[in-house]
Parts: sequence; C-alpha cells; structure tokens
Amino acid sequence: MKSVSELRQDIVSGDWVVIATGRAKRPREFLHRSRAPFIQPKNTCPFEKLHKNTLLVYGKDGKNIKNNWWVEAIPNKYPALAMHGVCALYHKAGIYQWIDGIGAHEVIVTRDHDRSLALMSDEEAELVIRVFQERYFALKADSCTEYVSIFHNHGRQSGATIVHPHSQIIAVPVIPPDVGRSLRGSAAYFHEHKACVHCLVIEYELKQKDRLIYENDYFLVIAPFASKTAFEIRVFPKVHAPHFEEMDSAGRAFCANALRVALAKLSKGLNNPDYNFFLHTAPVGDDKEFNHYHWHFEIVPKTAIWAGFEIGTGIEISVIAPETAAEFLRKIKI
Amino acid sequence: MKSVSELRQDIVSGDWVVIATGRAKRPREFLHRSRAPFIQPKNTCPFEKLHKNTLLVYGKDGKNIKNNWWVEAIPNKYPALAMHGVCALYHKAGIYQWIDGIGAHEVIVTRDHDRSLALMSDEEAELVIRVFQERYFALKADSCTEYVSIFHNHGRQSGATIVHPHSQIIAVPVIPPDVGRSLRGSAAYFHEHKACVHCLVIEYELKQKDRLIYENDYFLVIAPFASKTAFEIRVFPKVHAPHFEEMDSAGRAFCANALRVALAKLSKGLNNPDYNFFLHTAPVGDDKEFNHYHWHFEIVPKTAIWAGFEIGTGIEISVIAPETAAEFLRKIKI
Repeated sequence: MKSVSELRQDIVSGDWVVIATGRAKRPREFLHRSRAPFIQPKNTCPFEKLHKNTLLVYGKDGKNIKNNWWVEAIPNKYPALAMHGVCALYHKAGIYQWIDGIGAHEVIVTRDHDRSLALMSDEEAELVIRVFQERYFALKADSCTEYVSIFHNHGRQSGATIVHPHSQIIAVPVIPPDVGRSLRGSAAYFHEHKACVHCLVIEYELKQKDRLIYENDYFLVIAPFASKTAFEIRVFPKVHAPHFEEMDSAGRAFCANALRVALAKLSKGLNNPDYNFFLHTAPVGDDKEFNHYHWHFEIVPKTAIWAGFEIGTGIEISVIAPETAAEFLRKIKI
Repeated sequence: MKSVSELRQDIVSGDWVVIATGRAKRPREFLHRSRAPFIQPKNTCPFEKLHKNTLLVYGKDGKNIKNNWWVEAIPNKYPALAMHGVCALYHKAGIYQWIDGIGAHEVIVTRDHDRSLALMSDEEAELVIRVFQERYFALKADSCTEYVSIFHNHGRQSGATIVHPHSQIIAVPVIPPDVGRSLRGSAAYFHEHKACVHCLVIEYELKQKDRLIYENDYFLVIAPFASKTAFEIRVFPKVHAPHFEEMDSAGRAFCANALRVALAKLSKGLNNPDYNFFLHTAPVGDDKEFNHYHWHFEIVPKTAIWAGFEIGTGIEISVIAPETAAEFLRKIKI
C-alpha cells in the first residue's frame, strides 16, 4: 500500500515536514483568484512623498538625489524596537527574565506605488539590495545589535498593512530563536562533516536539477527538499559566504537578478500571491565564529493557514511536492 | 526615555518574544467585528449523521449508544498520515533523508452543529476529554507511534474548513520539532535546577496572580509570561503530571471545567474569535525518560498575522501584555 505522504527532514535544522502526496494539488490550484484586491489610493499613501527624515536616499543612478529619489530608508513610525543609547539590560521578574526592547526598526521604500521587486528591472532591484547592505552596516555599527533582520511583506495576508512596496529592517539585541537554530544546525554539520551544509545542498541541487528553479553565474534559486510551505523558494550565493553585507557590487548584480526572477516567476505563475521574504545571514558578532554559515534569502508564499497541528508540533504540511513546484516555476517565462 | 517594548524570554524554550508596550492596544480593540461569518448549512454538513465507520461512539451518558450518539471518533477522510502495518522506513535521497508518512489521523466530532466546547456543559466537555484519552491510548498502542498530537481548529482563520465543531488527533512516527524543543528545555531545566520548570511556573503564577485567568481545585488557566500571541492561554494541571492520558476521572472533570471556562471567557470576551488549541504532553515512549515534563493545553487565538519578521526570526510580536489580557479575561463572567 502506498503511503499518503512523506516526512522529509530538513538537513540543517533536523525539523520534519509532511509532503502530502496523497492529497497533492496541481500547481494551478494554488492560483490566487477569489481574494479581495489590496488597493490603497496614491493620494493618501504615506510613502508617496520623500520622508522628511530619510536615513538614506538614492536616485535611479545610485546617487544621493533628493529631488528625484527612487529609494529611501526611513525610521518606522511605529517601531517594534527602538534605540536608546544604552544596550538592553537584563531584568528579573520572579522566575522570569526580560530585557528592554532596544534596537532599531527601519523601512526601505521604493518610489513606485504599484511596482514591487517582481516588476523591477535588475538595476532597480540592485539598488534595493545596496540599500539593504548600507543600512545593515549602519545598524551593525551599534554595539548593542546582535542580529539584523531584513524582510519584506507582500500582500494583506502576508501581514502588509501598506500596499506601497516596502521592506523592513529590524536590529535585534539577541540572536533570534529561529536564526539560532539555523546556526546551531549549520555549526553541528560543519563540526561533524567538515563542510558547509549549504554548500553541499547547492552542489547537490545544481547536479540533481529536480528542485532547481533558476540560476545565473553567482546565484541559484531552488525549492527546498523539506519545504515548509507550498512554493517555498530559497536564493543562495553559489560560493560560500557567511555574511550578506560583505557581498561586493558584482555579486550584488547577480543577487538582484536572482531574487527578482524568483519573485517574478512566483508572481506570474500564481497570479500575484501574497508572500514574505527574509534574509538569513550570520550574526553581526565575531566573524570567525560563524564561518560555517551561508547566507540566503527565503521566500515563503502564503499558500496555506498554519492550523493547530502546525502550531502545536512545528510540522508543516505541504500539499505540493517541491519538485512539482520547481518544475512549474522553472517553466514560467518572464 | 522609556523603551517601546520588552523582549521576554520563555523559561522553557529560551525563545524570545516582543511585547510591544509602546503600541499596546486595549483588550476591546481585539474584538472580532468585521469578519465574514463562517456558516455552513446543517443539511450538507458531513458531520451531522453518525459516521458509518466510527472508531468510538458515546451517548451523553457516556455509554456506547449509537442511536442517540453525542460524540464520535472517526477516521479523517483526507489523512495527513496513515497506518500501513509497518513502521516508517528511513530512505536516503542523496544528501537528504525522508520516511514514509506512517501514522494515523482521526477526527472527534460532537453532535451539535453550532455548539463548540466554549458553549458546552462541564459534563459534555468531560466526555470530549475522555474520548481524547481513549483514542490516545489506542494510537499509543501502535509501536510505530512516537507522538500523539491532539488539536482543535475553531474558525476559518484558524484553518478550520468545516464549521461543525471537531477536534483532530494525529499519530506521528517522530518526535515533532516543537515538542522536541519543549521537552529539551524542560529536561535541561530539570537537570540544572532539580525541579519541573512548569511546576515552578504554576507555583509562581498562583502566588503572583497577575497572569492568572481562572483556577479550580486541580487546574489553573494563565496567560503565559512570554506570550507569543495576544490573548494566548495555557491550561495546566496543578499537580506534576507528564502524561495527559494518565489523568483519572476526577482530574478529567476539573480539566474539562478549566478548558471550557478558558474557551468560554475567550469567546465571550472577544466576540467568538478564531483560535487553535493543542495538547503538549510527554511522548508515548519510555515513561521515566520524560518524568520532567508537565502536560498542558495551549490556546492560541488568531489575533495577528505572522509576517516576515516573525517567520524569519521566530520572534513573535504581541501588542498587548499578557497581564492586561489576563485581567480582561479574569473579569469576563460566564
């Protein structure tokens, strides 16, 4: 009797996911059709005008042109964490501990109200990546920062409240739990096998091709073997690199191309689905300690709701195999 | 300058959450108002008639009465995992590994189309808990089972697809990742402090009272110090107990009362919000190995969307302090 599903193990974290082959869907069944449109008029959009306190601003030529700006970094009006000149202190509350919400929360806004990364040119996307890197360096310079999280919410179901395309950066005074798990998994693999686990994945996926979605000279785009959600996508530099912020301008052009193509294929293939993407990179601390790590972007479309089983066990159920998703996305012409 | 938030550390897992005091909301702001109603007619409901292959069925008197049934356990029509007489085999796929999706997936259905646990009597809720325990024992008896997950999805945003109240049980051939983390945290605490961390939490919360929502002789209901979502609730037996399934009938009556009151307060206080609840209990294996654990229910209302930061870091942001949520729920009369 054939089993209705597979339990696949993530090679880095050791986590399990269910790939429900028995009730597998075809790629077209994931097309977003019935969603209420996410539209907000330009004239009331808070991101239409150049912010009065920009942290950084560039024109399309990559120069600091305020009167013809194309991308800006600004403070988040409602920060989750904020800087206060002193590092977070540990407080005791009986048996518990907590620290002050020290950190920073910034927003990266591109000029066009209706044009997300998926619709940009490579050059435009590259400028966004460059701003990510420059703000990363600025936030890393604060000695209280332990980790810098860069992420993007696209669509209402992904948690976006403003339709105008924007990414966010949060400087955090601790190593976040999921980042810590990814780092520990990577470190354990390195210790046991004397190899970067991500480099092995890259080598294997380039050879095996089943889950390969796209590649250029320096980057590859894959559907991960143990995908947590349908149409999950990862973007890796081919050459071992722990630190995103250290990527040079040549690498940046290929990174922008890979990320843009990945998002464009997803958007065209599934009719502009809601998604999140985020960066996983080595923490800002001592370089050598995290030499085993390999930075990458993860793109997570909102194709399903995490229900009681997923929340209670941490086992996600995906109803399409990553090989099927990759084949579908590979063939999407953009 | 006062910080805009706190980072609180979970005493069991070590994970961090952000409690955003700077943009804190009042409890009434979480009232569900504008949601599309989740209504399905009785005459097409798949759970109205007694299933033809019940695994277990009881009348309201707790006897096996099919012609006047009140609760049944049935196989899930679309199982995520299914039994096949042999345990899961480990397969290699290049550098990766996977196992067959061996296990079981059952549904516990109560008779009334519109009456969830929050609206039941204590006696009715107790029968549901009894069925949880009896099916737990049945699934634990299979030597391939490593963990039995019991959970409930209420409302469309929680992942429910059928409005008729039902819980689910999935027998899993591995220790799930989140359960493993909870167990490891609990074991590490026990090793270091020679005490059950959950017992210390219970003792502290009963004394401190800020996060206490409800208690009876044998159970307490609290808002956890490091709540991952607004209005998160936990239901603990007061006396140390690793294994849910071993609770006796006296304990079961108090457990049913505590779970029902918790859900009733949440439903009345926030106008019937969508929520998930799930059981965390010791795995089915060797009893002694998990003596440090303390079983409990976790209730997680769908009060926010997990966006790129939460998915990328594992740090959830809650915009109401658990003390405020607990005070609000404590005062709700049911």
